[in-house]
Formats: sequence, C-alpha cells, structure tokens
Amino acid sequence: MINSNSMISAKLASPPPSLLLPPSPRLQGRRLAPSCLSDAGMPPQSPACPGPDQESSGVARSGAKAPAAGSSSSSSSPSRSSPPRGSAQLNRWSRARAHRSGRRLEWPTIRDRSGASKAPPPTRQPSSGEAATAVVEDDIDDGVLGIGRDESAKSIYMVSDGTGWTAEHSVNAALGQFEHCLVDRGCAVNTHLFNGIDDLDRLIEIIKQAAKEGALVLYTLADPSMAEATKKACELWGVPSTDVLRPTIEAIASHIGVAPSGIPRSSPSRKGQLTEDYFRRIEAIDFTIKQDDGAQPQNLNRAHIVLVGVSRTGKTPLSIYLAQKGYKVANVPIVMGVNLPKSLFEIDQDKIFGLTINPVVLQAIRKARAKALGFHGHKSNYAEMEHVRGELDHANQIFSTHPIWPVIEVTGKAIEESAAVVVRIFHDRKQKCAMPRISKRY
Amino acid sequence: MINSNSMISAKLASPPPSLLLPPSPRLQGRRLAPSCLSDAGMPPQSPACPGPDQESSGVARSGAKAPAAGSSSSSSSPSRSSPPRGSAQLNRWSRARAHRSGRRLEWPTIRDRSGASKAPPPTRQPSSGEAATAVVEDDIDDGVLGIGRDESAKSIYMVSDGTGWTAEHSVNAALGQFEHCLVDRGCAVNTHLFNGIDDLDRLIEIIKQAAKEGALVLYTLADPSMAEATKKACELWGVPSTDVLRPTIEAIASHIGVAPSGIPRSSPSRKGQLTEDYFRRIEAIDFTIKQDDGAQPQNLNRAHIVLVGVSRTGKTPLSIYLAQKGYKVANVPIVMGVNLPKSLFEIDQDKIFGLTINPVVLQAIRKARAKALGFHGHKSNYAEMEHVRGELDHANQIFSTHPIWPVIEVTGKAIEESAAVVVRIFHDRKQKCAMPRISKRY
Repeated sequence: MINSNSMISAKLASPPPSLLLPPSPRLQGRRLAPSCLSDAGMPPQSPACPGPDQESSGVARSGAKAPAAGSSSSSSSPSRSSPPRGSAQLNRWSRARAHRSGRRLEWPTIRDRSGASKAPPPTRQPSSGEAATAVVEDDIDDGVLGIGRDESAKSIYMVSDGTGWTAEHSVNAALGQFEHCLVDRGCAVNTHLFNGIDDLDRLIEIIKQAAKEGALVLYTLADPSMAEATKKACELWGVPSTDVLRPTIEAIASHIGVAPSGIPRSSPSRKGQLTEDYFRRIEAIDFTIKQDDGAQPQNLNRAHIVLVGVSRTGKTPLSIYLAQKGYKVANVPIVMGVNLPKSLFEIDQDKIFGLTINPVVLQAIRKARAKALGFHGHKSNYAEMEHVRGELDHANQIFSTHPIWPVIEVTGKAIEESAAVVVRIFHDRKQKCAMPRISKRY
Repeated sequence: MINSNSMISAKLASPPPSLLLPPSPRLQGRRLAPSCLSDAGMPPQSPACPGPDQESSGVARSGAKAPAAGSSSSSSSPSRSSPPRGSAQLNRWSRARAHRSGRRLEWPTIRDRSGASKAPPPTRQPSSGEAATAVVEDDIDDGVLGIGRDESAKSIYMVSDGTGWTAEHSVNAALGQFEHCLVDRGCAVNTHLFNGIDDLDRLIEIIKQAAKEGALVLYTLADPSMAEATKKACELWGVPSTDVLRPTIEAIASHIGVAPSGIPRSSPSRKGQLTEDYFRRIEAIDFTIKQDDGAQPQNLNRAHIVLVGVSRTGKTPLSIYLAQKGYKVANVPIVMGVNLPKSLFEIDQDKIFGLTINPVVLQAIRKARAKALGFHGHKSNYAEMEHVRGELDHANQIFSTHPIWPVIEVTGKAIEESAAVVVRIFHDRKQKCAMPRISKRY
C-alpha cells in the first residue's frame, strides 16, 4: 500500500534520468518481431518494444517472479517514423494520434492538484532510424512468421497488479465490438499487458511510455493509491485511461455493504490457502485428460459431462475448457465401424451431449488437420467430403435415437461459446428452473 | 437490435400474467440444492432457483442453443422466509436488504422518462413455505454434498448476451476484493449468470426477478438498446446495476476513433470465421495433452514452453492453462531414480521452466491426492515428508545446475498466477525489453 500522496507527487515530479539519455543505435537493422494476428487464445508476441537501447536489462531472469523494468535503461523511442500504411481513414487517425501525442509530449509545464509545478514528460522526438524497436531472438511459432509490424496500429496498455488476465479478458471482449475495423479491415490495435505492477516506480514508467506511444491505459489495480496515482499521472500527461474493474468493485461494495480490501491478489497477505476448490479443479483437469478421446470408458459414470461427436468437432478443447471450470469431462469419439462403448448407454443420459458441425466446415478443419499431421497416403478419406458427410450422418442417426442428448451445433462457435451452451443446459437440467441460470456461492 | 424506445417502455409497463399466478407448492419438501463453496474454477451449482412452480419449463432441451425462460411460468418466489443466519452484522444487512426489497416491490407507481405511468413490478410476498426454492435431481459432485443453502447470502445477477464469461471473470476478480468477508467470514455472495440473453422479454423477466431477490445486476450487453433497457428497468425498479464492460468499450472507441458495432458475439452476423487463431489454439491444446507427463520426449523441441518439476507441483494444470492461451507446452516430471530425457538438454534451454513448492504444502497436496487415488499400501512414501523433501532437494539440485531455467515458486499460487509469471518471463526473453510486456496484435 502506498499511503502518501506526497510520494505520488514526488514520483510524478521528475522523469528518471535514463529518459534523458540519447538513444542507442545498437539494435538497428535487427529483425523485427513478427506480429501475431491473434485473439485472446493465441500466443501474443511483441509488435512493439519500447526502445532500442533496452536490451541490456532484458536478460533472462531466474526466480519466482520476473521483475519488470528496472530504472536502469529506459530511453525508449516510440515508433512513429514509418509512414502509416492502410486506408485514408487510418492515415487520418495516425496523423491525429501523432498530433495528439506531440502535443502531450511538448506540454511545457504540468500542474498537479496541489498546484505544484511538474517537470514535463520527456520531449525527445524519435528519429527515422528508430523505427526498429521490436526485436526477438527467435519466433514463437513458424505459423506467425513473416507478418510485419504495423506502425499505424493503436496501442492499448493494460496495467495490472496481478496476473492481468482480467484486464486482458475484458479488453479482448471489448475489442469484439470493433471487429468490423480490426486488422484485416484496416484498423489494427496492439495490446500490451504489464502485469505484476505493484510499485509506483514501474507504474509511472509505464504511463510515461504510454504518453510517448500515444497509448490508451486500461488498468486493474486493487490498491486505491496505485489506482489514484495512475489516474493522476494519466491526467497530467494527457493519457486517456480507464479503470476496468472499479465500477464493478464499487457496485459490489455498495451492494454487500463491505469496503474492498484494496489488497492485490499477488500480495503475500492473500496467499497460501489450499482450498477445496483448488483440489477439485485439479482433479477435474486430471480426470478430463485421462478420459480424452474415449479412453477409459469404464470411468464415464464418474464424469459430470460426456461429449460425443466425430473427429474434429472440438471435443478435446471443449472438454479441457470445461475442466478448467471444474467439470469432470469425458469425450467419446464417433467413428464409423466402431461401436460406442457400452458404458455410454448405462450412465445417466442427462449428462451426455452430442456435438455436430457443418460438413463443409468440418472438411476444412480436417484438411488443415491432415496437412498438419502430414497425412497424404493412408487415412486420406479422413477429409473427403463423402466420408465427412457419411460420418456426420452416422452421428446424427445416433443422436436421433437418443433424443435426451442435447446436440450442440459447434459450427463457427468459439470454444467458449460452445462451453457456455453446454454449461447452461447442464445447469438447467440440474435446477429445473424456468429462469435458467448458472449459480455459484462465494 | 431493438430500435424502438416505445417497445422498451411497453415491456416495462406490465408484468407478464404469469407473475400474478399463485405459487405452486409442488416442490416443497424436496431436497435443497447443495451449495458449492467454489470460486471461478469450480462447477457452479444453484443455491437459489427463482420459484417452486417452475419445474415444468425446465425440461431438458435439445438443440444448439438452450432457450432460456419462456413466458409460461414465472411465479417466482424469493426466499427470505428462513431467518438469516450468521453474524449480527450479517443479520443487519439481511434486514436492510429485506427492507430495501420490500420498498422496491411496493412502489405504487413507476414513471419512465416519458412520464407515462407504469405498472409496478409484482408485489406478492413469499410465504414461509416457499423457502425450498432450489432443487436438483442429483449432485454435481459428492465432494460438495451436504453444504446447505445460505439464505442470507447477497445475490449478484450477471446478465450477458454472449457466453457471460467476461462478466463472470470480472465479478470473480472483483470479489477477490471482498475475500476478507466472504463465505467463512460470514458474508456470503451468490452469483447467478444469465447468458445468451438477447431478447427484451427475458431481460425484463430477469430484472424483475432481481428486484424481488434484492439482487445487484451486473451486465455485459453489446446492443446499446438492450443495455439502455437494463439501465432503465433497473432504475425504475430500484435495482442497483452496473454495465461491466461499457467504460472499457467507450475508452477504446474514443481511442481508436471507431464506434462499437453493438453486435453481440452470438449474433449470426459475427459467425463462421475459421481463423488461423482457432487452428493454432486447437493445435496447442492437442500438442499439450499429448506431451503431458513426459510423454513423447522426442517432441520437446516443438514446444514453446517446457515445464519441469516433481509430481504435484501443478505441471499439468499449468500446461493446460497455457495451452488454452495458445502456447504449446510440454511437461517433464522429475522422479528420483529416473533420468530426465536426454532431449530436454538438447533443446533451446530458454524455454524450460522449473516448478518448485514448499515441502509442507506439497505433502498436503500429495496426501489429498493419495487419498483420492486410494493409495494405502504401495507408493506410500509418495506423501511422506522425508521423501517429499528428498525429491524437492533432488529437483533443486537439477535446477541449480541449469541456472538458465527460471524456477517458479508455485506455493499458494493459483494456476493463473503461475501462468502469468511463466508468460511474463517467456515474453521478456523473446523481447529483450527493459519494460517487460505481453503484446498482441488485433
């Protein structure tokens, strides 16, 4: 907890000396990081590192917690030097952003609420040679190679004192509202997650960098003084910012009549509980992995949920997603010419769910799968349309003789969406309510 | 999309006829649902169904999407009849809530902004016989049997037009700020997730129920007219409410200069894309499951991340969590007397992470594990302290001879927390930045 307002003011008062250092050209000419056209589920990569002379402090670290930026080297250079590409609208945004950012960076003096004069944030403008700010040693995946960095992308900084997954999840969901303009449609966004930020120095450093990059700052900080410092610093330096979780926390506080603790989840004072939950969730994951792909049919009775479907209807990822939520899931493949295990028909039929999918989409998925696995000769009918249709017909016949099994149409659904349908039906059946809901006790 | 304000007003004007029906005593005396002392990761159960006479519409459904409450039966009864249990403070809250709820329900007339007179929400008070409102046919897990329903718990309704996972995630994170008073400390909260709510009828029904239960309504609704209807209805009926995602969406809209689409993720117009992401994520999950517990060491070179640790340090759940985020993960167990696979030392050492844990905690986990697996005779040293310490010492010796492997201390950490540390270090190493961040492109 940071209790002193004067401490915050002191932090805001002066940029660290390193920000005044000239940039190092060391990394110029090195390969740019491949950007990853990914959504929430994908391995994120760095389309933009703050500056070219920061490599020295980026060495691998050992230990339980990776320390974030030290104060040793931070003469970051924003990368606005390349001409923005894309649509005319995009160019307008880019210019507008550059304009806004410039204005921010050139503010002569900044006053905080106490009226004290503050030093401005660093004013150094990037040179054209500093565009190469993102460097990786090797690639996360060959599949994402060759996608260049988008200079015109808007930056969103997510700052969290914990894992940052809440901010990431919320931002990802919110970005769903801008799908009509993201990436392929000309308006790219880069998100940058700064997690485990529990001290003011790093926080201020990040906000200064956000000011330089023209980024939006979205934060989840439990400690009210850290949240307040973020708000204040962002206001001072003209950085747009929003506290992602505060309205929800305040609504709950007001509803239950209890003040929030203000203690980040990572705090030692919130550690060390081995809850029943922990064991149950681990057990669900263990169970689900062991049952994957029809293994151990004698254990189907121990599952909460049993998924049945042909190959590549997403049984495994759906099982795993549900297991993470604490459900023990078994999945049983439907394969032509192979009988379903007898035990499937002996267990509680209420917990069995069929999965089905459009044959054209299934064929596309199977072709990709076959390619990935290097199928060419044998098993070649796996992705043939006639075979795909035949197998789906076979599955649908099985489903129609067991009308108690809900059949989930997974075509075009994200794993999370299919999971939501399964969980809803599962709880409807348990509850027998007219107003279906998924309830928990805390 | 609902475009007509008058339509919303009409919906708010009168309760559906079913709300005026007398309650059915049919389900009285049936077994109460066991409540589940669970957090985000656990199978939620219903501590509270809306009413005793709703069973008829709760039959199992087949189809891609489970329809939610029809308009056929909704004479819900809130369950406030049992005397509140718990602390004096809790009793005060409970009385206060009852008082507030009563006032809400007894409002004589309600005016919307147009000035038109509205019918009040249903005013029927529950009788003492209606407390048994939560019914299940069987139990999700023997492990959660016998935990009674907490009548004094505060209700939080989460309403979503999509999966509801964003609302759930945010509420779970926010509730972390109230751990000091939840469940064991006397202030219980029940959350109720209503997902896939994409029509006004069901929305209004839910808000009416929230008014009767004295619940807080937290919502994520992409369609602005649905969000506005929620706000309006909650205001009319005195239900506290907060739009969980709106501030984040608006901040992004303002930042990138693009209006949000207002289209829920479940809308057909947002369907059908088989993205590269989808395949990559599925592939990561497939890979990770196949590599679990040291299987196929010849494939370690294909992993993004390799986790190494003794049994029950959480390698598998951590691997699975990371796989969901798109990382291919392999995990390799350290077992005394068994050599680590040669390939582990031949791959890029930068991607290997050690896991370690406090021996006392590990022993507790192993004891629980041994009990669950029914170990008694053989393998009995698995959970013995001497053996546990010996194995951890052995692991630490291995780690110390490979200082490039970061060692993650998992004691007391949730899976998500360990994952955050791994991902942070992973990206630090890729980026060589002074300001570590986890970046993505959208």
